[in-house]
Amino acid sequence: MSPGSLALLTDLYQVTMACGYWKLGRADEEAVFNLFFRRAPFRGAHAIAAGLQEALQYMAEFRFTPEDVAYLGTLRGNDGARLLEPGFLDYLASLRLSLDVEAVPEGTPVFPHEPLLRVRGPLAQCQLLETPLLNFINFSTLIATKAARICEAAGGQPVVEFGLRRAQGCDGALTASRAAYIGGCAATSNVLAGMRYGIPVRGTHAHSWVMSFAGEREAFAAYAESLPNNCTFLVDTYDTLEGVRRAAEVGKLLAARGHAMAGVRLDSGDLAALSVAAREILDAAGLEQAAIVASNDLDEREIAALKAKGAAIGVWGVGTRLVTAYDQPALGGVYKLAALRGRAGWEYRIKLSEEPVKVSNPGVQQVRRYADPAGRLLGDVIYEEGLGLHGAGARVDAAGEFAPPAGASVEDLLVPVLRAGRPVYEPPPLVEVRARAQAQLQRLDPAVRRLDAPTSYPVALDRPLADLKARLMAEARRER
Amino acid sequence: MSPGSLALLTDLYQVTMACGYWKLGRADEEAVFNLFFRRAPFRGAHAIAAGLQEALQYMAEFRFTPEDVAYLGTLRGNDGARLLEPGFLDYLASLRLSLDVEAVPEGTPVFPHEPLLRVRGPLAQCQLLETPLLNFINFSTLIATKAARICEAAGGQPVVEFGLRRAQGCDGALTASRAAYIGGCAATSNVLAGMRYGIPVRGTHAHSWVMSFAGEREAFAAYAESLPNNCTFLVDTYDTLEGVRRAAEVGKLLAARGHAMAGVRLDSGDLAALSVAAREILDAAGLEQAAIVASNDLDEREIAALKAKGAAIGVWGVGTRLVTAYDQPALGGVYKLAALRGRAGWEYRIKLSEEPVKVSNPGVQQVRRYADPAGRLLGDVIYEEGLGLHGAGARVDAAGEFAPPAGASVEDLLVPVLRAGRPVYEPPPLVEVRARAQAQLQRLDPAVRRLDAPTSYPVALDRPLADLKARLMAEARRER
Repeated sequence: MSPGSLALLTDLYQVTMACGYWKLGRADEEAVFNLFFRRAPFRGAHAIAAGLQEALQYMAEFRFTPEDVAYLGTLRGNDGARLLEPGFLDYLASLRLSLDVEAVPEGTPVFPHEPLLRVRGPLAQCQLLETPLLNFINFSTLIATKAARICEAAGGQPVVEFGLRRAQGCDGALTASRAAYIGGCAATSNVLAGMRYGIPVRGTHAHSWVMSFAGEREAFAAYAESLPNNCTFLVDTYDTLEGVRRAAEVGKLLAARGHAMAGVRLDSGDLAALSVAAREILDAAGLEQAAIVASNDLDEREIAALKAKGAAIGVWGVGTRLVTAYDQPALGGVYKLAALRGRAGWEYRIKLSEEPVKVSNPGVQQVRRYADPAGRLLGDVIYEEGLGLHGAGARVDAAGEFAPPAGASVEDLLVPVLRAGRPVYEPPPLVEVRARAQAQLQRLDPAVRRLDAPTSYPVALDRPLADLKARLMAEARRER
Repeated sequence: MSPGSLALLTDLYQVTMACGYWKLGRADEEAVFNLFFRRAPFRGAHAIAAGLQEALQYMAEFRFTPEDVAYLGTLRGNDGARLLEPGFLDYLASLRLSLDVEAVPEGTPVFPHEPLLRVRGPLAQCQLLETPLLNFINFSTLIATKAARICEAAGGQPVVEFGLRRAQGCDGALTASRAAYIGGCAATSNVLAGMRYGIPVRGTHAHSWVMSFAGEREAFAAYAESLPNNCTFLVDTYDTLEGVRRAAEVGKLLAARGHAMAGVRLDSGDLAALSVAAREILDAAGLEQAAIVASNDLDEREIAALKAKGAAIGVWGVGTRLVTAYDQPALGGVYKLAALRGRAGWEYRIKLSEEPVKVSNPGVQQVRRYADPAGRLLGDVIYEEGLGLHGAGARVDAAGEFAPPAGASVEDLLVPVLRAGRPVYEPPPLVEVRARAQAQLQRLDPAVRRLDAPTSYPVALDRPLADLKARLMAEARRER
């Protein structure tokens, strides 16, 4: 069987809804959808936008192959008859995207309710893309954010991503390595991610290396003999501090031969106490340059706790809890219809909910970001392009009003990435995306970046947009 | 840049260790590694083995391309000089796997400490495969197990997997859809998974369909007009029970035209109470056949709670919490060196740990499973093939001894899948794997399958293997 193209990487209901719109003559009705999340992950205040490059490549290559269409033709409804009629399959076979898409560049700090992606164009096309766009943006944004938190906890010390063996599938690993690098990781252990994305690759050795020798000393000496410029010895196979002493002996031999031992890795036990003791042993051996690398189910909270205990750790190896975003393995991003073009112009749409925070915002949205003269971010205003920018309004977290001071510098977050179905945005090299994220994070109030109980960042609905929303809510409630 | 082959889907340290073994003349030393987990996920007692097909395909295709090798040649050590020397790169370029691999077939219930995969052959090859094999087996086993638990809670009612939009990447979604089907799901929403793996695909419609019409009634009627054999109406866009009434009206129209409304979907609110009220409305309209589908952050515990409350739900749509295994998004599978061939035969290896449960088992392991004449599983014995089978021993959970009754039927779980690097196992069609999982689960004591506080299933270390392990532990502790 043919593997199928990624045009089929969508929920069946997108295809049946597209079929319904096509059948009703509505497939090309102009629509606007916004992709956003309602709550920042990990009990934080912010997220780091990521996944755009993958989304853009997907849209650039989007096309149903003859095999895809043939497969769709085999699907049956609950009466055993064809689910999708031949005319619709012909429509899919000849479908070429003609959408206009705006997006927030990767590496940008983003906040609840802000559109990360805005998709505008034929209703059926918007609908078909919902699921893959959510898949790409949700996951990469989640991991970039997790990495940023972990790097925040590491306070400038390098964090190396080690997660491949526990990642959610091959692509779960590759995409996670890329997003983790955007979020601030210094390197990955995943060699393929290194090759594909140009991420630095790093590694130490495993317990099995030590176990394959008669003793730990022989194991370290043999490794040093073979790979003298890559020596970070894993010291906890038998007795950790004894392991550090043996590593230090080999480190002195390496130094005598003109090489520098890179460090030792601690992978179990009381990492705070062991790192302090290991540091003393290494320093006493004249190996002040050798780093202490720690691993073992680390995340931002564990790293913060180890630092608070005075751990002498210089490099953090983080795997499972980073690449699976262990404590919150999904970002709840959604993709909501916000407007449809009617005879008299845009007809705005909202999704109602019992919970006010879940009522979606209507319209063709843009986000204006304000900064002070020093570059520090002051707050954002979500506005509707057709209504124009007022520049102030009630905060979406109900914490009062936000109005920027006069003279604040401004930037609109969403930039065009697709025009009439063609890419018009050249994603920057990954190393620049990472630098952007680091620079942007520095512009945020540290209280907003804080791991626990962060200060909420001001995001307001622009007054005209808020008025529009209030009117739509009132209308919808009357019509029920 | 070339995308690189999957041979690079490994941790850098596997490559550097392989380089070390090669340099020391040990690359082809015969080794045995076992892949196993130490604790069943989700506080359960068992897991469902999955991921073998992907692992087998990976091994069958494993080869470093010239581009892979060229990339590896660019890597630098901490002194700026080449990390890997040219002779080793030549070795990788010409490397063809010559391993023998045994594995537990997909869809088999497995327990802590049992090898799911046993890899035997040249040490460097075993090491290079560690990370990808863990990635494949860990994730698929995790999701198949989660699906089995969710289906257990659903008690035979269909569970449809809806997780693509929140899955961890594209492959995280596809692999999850496949594993969820193995674990018992009836269908997926993921069209590409349907095409690739032959899984039934199902879907309803989204809120955006309803929002794109002037009213809910028009939306349902238009959908019924377009797709009369796929009508499961999402009824909670405005007022849920009003939505059910409107769906029922359209259902009656469908019936009058010879179609059957498939059902309604509830996606918010008090699903137990709403489903009961919806059932009454549908039954009163003569739509007894129409199913009530529920979705909204469901998992096994939520489903069990809804059933306990008397919910009238007939089909369960489960997304995020299934495909990300939300409450435990990684299986902690490990891959441990268990023996090396020395001059006088196997030299057995164990990984020590302060925690007894973390001390690995040595040797070339096999698992014998015992069943009573009715087919019910009685317990398993992990034995070492070279030492022969004694057939009883102490349980790995320290809950006494396990000795099967005379006359129990027996089966060895690990079967050959690779011989001298060539596949010797034809994976059964996915639908048969799913059937196997369902049949095998029925052979387990329901108390073992239970969601909470399950009874532990007897898994024993065969006496000769336990004696070997005790001897190795004593020796290792002396040598420290």
